[in-house]
Order: sequence, then structure tokens, then C-alpha cells
Amino acid sequence: MPPKSNLELIDECDNFPYGLPSPPSSYYAFIHATTSLGYISPGVFDKITWDPSIWTINRTSRTVELRGHDVTQRDRALASFLAGIRKKRVFRLLDGWRGELYPVYCHNRESGKKEVIMHMERAATPLFGVATYGVHMTAYTYPKDGETSMKIWLPRRAMTKPTYPGMMDNSVAGGIASGEKVLDCLIREASEEASLSEDLVRGNARPCGTVTYFHVRDERAGGETGLCMPECEYVYDLELPVDVVPVPGDDEAVDFRLLNVEEVKTALTEGQFKPNCALVLLDFFVRHGVLTPDNEPDYIEIVSRLHRRLEFPTA
Amino acid sequence: MPPKSNLELIDECDNFPYGLPSPPSSYYAFIHATTSLGYISPGVFDKITWDPSIWTINRTSRTVELRGHDVTQRDRALASFLAGIRKKRVFRLLDGWRGELYPVYCHNRESGKKEVIMHMERAATPLFGVATYGVHMTAYTYPKDGETSMKIWLPRRAMTKPTYPGMMDNSVAGGIASGEKVLDCLIREASEEASLSEDLVRGNARPCGTVTYFHVRDERAGGETGLCMPECEYVYDLELPVDVVPVPGDDEAVDFRLLNVEEVKTALTEGQFKPNCALVLLDFFVRHGVLTPDNEPDYIEIVSRLHRRLEFPTA
Repeated sequence: MPPKSNLELIDECDNFPYGLPSPPSSYYAFIHATTSLGYISPGVFDKITWDPSIWTINRTSRTVELRGHDVTQRDRALASFLAGIRKKRVFRLLDGWRGELYPVYCHNRESGKKEVIMHMERAATPLFGVATYGVHMTAYTYPKDGETSMKIWLPRRAMTKPTYPGMMDNSVAGGIASGEKVLDCLIREASEEASLSEDLVRGNARPCGTVTYFHVRDERAGGETGLCMPECEYVYDLELPVDVVPVPGDDEAVDFRLLNVEEVKTALTEGQFKPNCALVLLDFFVRHGVLTPDNEPDYIEIVSRLHRRLEFPTA
Repeated sequence: MPPKSNLELIDECDNFPYGLPSPPSSYYAFIHATTSLGYISPGVFDKITWDPSIWTINRTSRTVELRGHDVTQRDRALASFLAGIRKKRVFRLLDGWRGELYPVYCHNRESGKKEVIMHMERAATPLFGVATYGVHMTAYTYPKDGETSMKIWLPRRAMTKPTYPGMMDNSVAGGIASGEKVLDCLIREASEEASLSEDLVRGNARPCGTVTYFHVRDERAGGETGLCMPECEYVYDLELPVDVVPVPGDDEAVDFRLLNVEEVKTALTEGQFKPNCALVLLDFFVRHGVLTPDNEPDYIEIVSRLHRRLEFPTA
């Protein structure tokens, strides 16, 4: 394969077209009152028997709304519906059932403030195309005293992972469950995935923004394709003392290797990284002056694309 | 005035609506072949006598194209046209004539690569709504040895400036003229505006991305209002040694003051900064972990809005 440019790496992950109408032709909008929360692919829409006691469907405006007067009612209806289609094995995607709830946000009609309006099983979020949230941290170090060139700690995903097995990953990364604070999620994942102590992470990890993109699922993710995945990753940097070595604390990663910037660049052009992890590393390279206006011809486009404005309410 | 939220500061600068058709209703698109380069407001369009030897106008598709087979021809026609409307004083905006040319980019039809297709007098760019480029640097320091809280060097604009007189500005900021490299522009402006040496800037300024926004001009900018200004600012950070004090090298700034983070935040909420400078500081605060997911309710929206994807070809 020819080496991938940085913009091509972004195109692979942020691959939902720009400038489409809402909902895009043939898609259905998953709505709450008048607000789109996500898009449902025609393939998903057609496979579901939409029980009118749970759903309000409008085939003219192409909208799907979950019935229920409050969060409790909506959560109960949604959980029962998802349990049913999981049992009937309507979607292969739900074979990857996680037993983790993700929050779905919308503006409150009176206060204008954003609030959680329902909770959805993590594995089901691509069926409705709602925005999901994660945290990605880049752990780096300056190996020799006074050395100015950094190295980055990067793991390889276990071959047993259902999604993107064997691909390279960010130092620490994970999804934010319902009710979990961003920093608490980072501390938990840093302990589970890299055996980093809470004190170290709490005291030294620096929040540096977000990377946002709108992904359309392809075969590498496993399960159905064409599903919408608008995602927001909160990004953190952590400079590690040279004697701290991350060690996998669970079976999700094989090992950590310490790569210099040129080695990471090469792995990126070879497509070795899980697609969204490549974006987090590109953002790291932009913020740390590795990519510059002079060495990256697509600099302006890249910086904007790493921070896509999602068209749905976010946290 | 009530204190401004960070999202309100962005709304004031990135104030062109999202999701409009291209060109937006009543606007004209300034095009090259089939590509929009910018938008012309109806007020501007109606005031100009469009000489058909220079312009191709299509009132149905609402497009304006500059005639000419190559850059030289287009530049000559545009310069002659602008000199004419300047002399007749059709637009107050052109009273601020700069005598600086800004590049306009488009994709080459054969190679697909972006190239400069014309050069336009800086003061005229809002008439055609083309993207412009600048560089903004934040100079900061840690005043006491071992002190962990930074301070930022910030100047106040002279009362004699035609635009945003008396408002606070970024440490170093300026527009990138045609043919000038980003880093060369930064070095020139850092010398002119802050008396910082070339060696210091070249060796220590770190490129950290871009801030992009689509501004619609209001009365504070002087001249006509409602004009489109899509802009890209290349952002740099510079940590200064405690004994380096920036000093205005020209008459654009009154003086530099060294403010701590809380003082900068207060000045932001009070609306003391030139609008686009506020965005550069917010980006700095995001990258340096001053704004966090936990202390800024609009964190996700803010990070995306600071990096708007411009709908025109960029450098």
C-alpha cells in the first residue's frame, strides 16, 4: 500500500460527508421534540419493526422519536426494545453487547441547558447514530536527561479484541460511561490499561481539548456497516518520568513500546493505528509543533477536520 | 454589561451562520471556474458597476467571476478595478487602503494542488469575502523561579488604529502578505510589534495549530457592515525568559502588561479584547489546561468553534 498522507488518515475516520441536509437523503433522524440526536441508516430502519407503543415514526419528515415523558420512561422502553432485538439477533452489532450505558444529551426546552434525556447500551449507539464520548491520553517522555526529542508510549491492541484487533492504539483510551466524570474515566482507564497510578494521572495529566469527528462504520469495526458514529474524544497529555513504564493492566493491550516521533510518523503512514487514534496523535503533533505550516501542506484543513463541529447536542 | 461567557466571545467573532446554502440567500458567490472563493454581500454587489470586460456575472446562479487567463491578467484587471472604486470612494472600507497584497487560493484543475490564482489589496478582501491569513503568538513567562502559574504579555492597541482602537490584543499578531512564509511573518511582526529578536523567535516559538472562524463585519471594524471575513490565524506559543520584556517597536500598541491567568479571564469576560484575539487566548487556555471539561460547560462546542472548517479553498 502507498503511504497515507495525514489528510488521508483523517478522511478514513472523519468520513461522513460535509454539507448534507439533515437528515441526509435516505437516512432517518432520531429526534427528541424538534432536535436531531443522531441519524439512523436506511438498512437499520428497514430491519426494525417499530412498535408504535414505543416509537413515533414520521415517514414524510423521516424522523424516529422514542416515546416517554421522562428519562425513566424512555430508559425502560429503550432497554426493553434493545433486549428484544438483541435476543432475536437482528443486528450482529449487538453481539458485542457491553452492559454499559452511554448518555444521550439534548437541550432542555425551558432552561436551554443540556441534560441527559436517555441512557443507551453502548453497543447500540451506532444504530441510532448518537454522539458518544471517550478520553484519549498521550503519554510521552524525554528518555535522556536534557534530551529534547520526545518518545511516546504506545500499545498494540490484543488480537482477541472484537474491534480493530492487532492495531496500534493511544497510550490510554476508553469510553465515558453514563454518570462518569471525564477525569475519573481517564484515571480508571489509565489504571486498567497502563497500570498508571491515580496520583500520577490526577497530578500531571493535562487536558488539551477535544478531537471530534463523524465516522461511518466500515467492516473493520465488525458488525453492520454504514452506521453513523459522531464521536468526541477528550484529549489529555501526560509527560512521564523516564522511570515510569506503562504495563497493560488488563487483556486489552499486548504491550507498550516507546517510539520516537519518526517511528510514530512511519506507523501512521503505514495505517497501523486504529483510525480514531491516528487523529489523536495528529492533534498531539499539531499542538507540539511536530506538524507545522511549513512541513504539512494540508495544515489548515487538518486542524479544522480534527475538530469537526457535530450537528447534534453534545455533553 | 453582564460578563460574557467564553461561548459568547466566540459567537461575536465566528458570527456567520452555520448550515446555510452556498451562496447564502441574497449573497453572491465570488467564484473561479466552479469553486466559491468567498461571498459578496448584496449591499456590495448593488453598489458596484460590474464592467463586463472585467467581470462575468450570472444573476441566476448569483455568481461573480473575475475574467483573465492567468494570474497576471487577473491581477491587472483587479488592481485597475479597485483603483477606480477607491478613487470614486464607493466604499468607506477602501479609505483604509493598505498597499499590501493578499493571496487568493484555488485548486488547480489538473494537478488538484492549491495555487495562488490572484492577489488582492488587503483592504478590499472583505468586499469579496475571500479567506485571509494571519499569525498570532502568545508570549508567556513564569515570573518567579519554580513558580508554576504563568503570566501572559499583552498589549493594548493604540487609540489611533483605524480598527478596534484601544482594545487589548495578542502578544504579537499580523496579517500574512502575499509570498511571505508563516514563520517569516511571525519573525517580522515580533520584531515590529514587540521588539523580540529573530533568534529568540526562530529558536523558541512553537507552532500549535490554527484558529479559524467566519466573521461578519460589524461597526467596530469601521467601514461597511455585513461583509464576510473568513479568516485563518496560525497560532504560536512563546515561553519568554523572565528578563525579556516586550516593547512596542512601532506605533500600533501602547504598552505591554504582564497579566496572570485570572486577570486575562476577567478582561475576556469584560469584552476588552479585539474579538479574534479573544479566540486565540481561548485556544491557548484549552491547550494549556486552563479551560477543562470540568470547569467549562461549553467545552466541546468551544473547541470545535475555534477551528471552523472554512468552505473556501485555503492556503
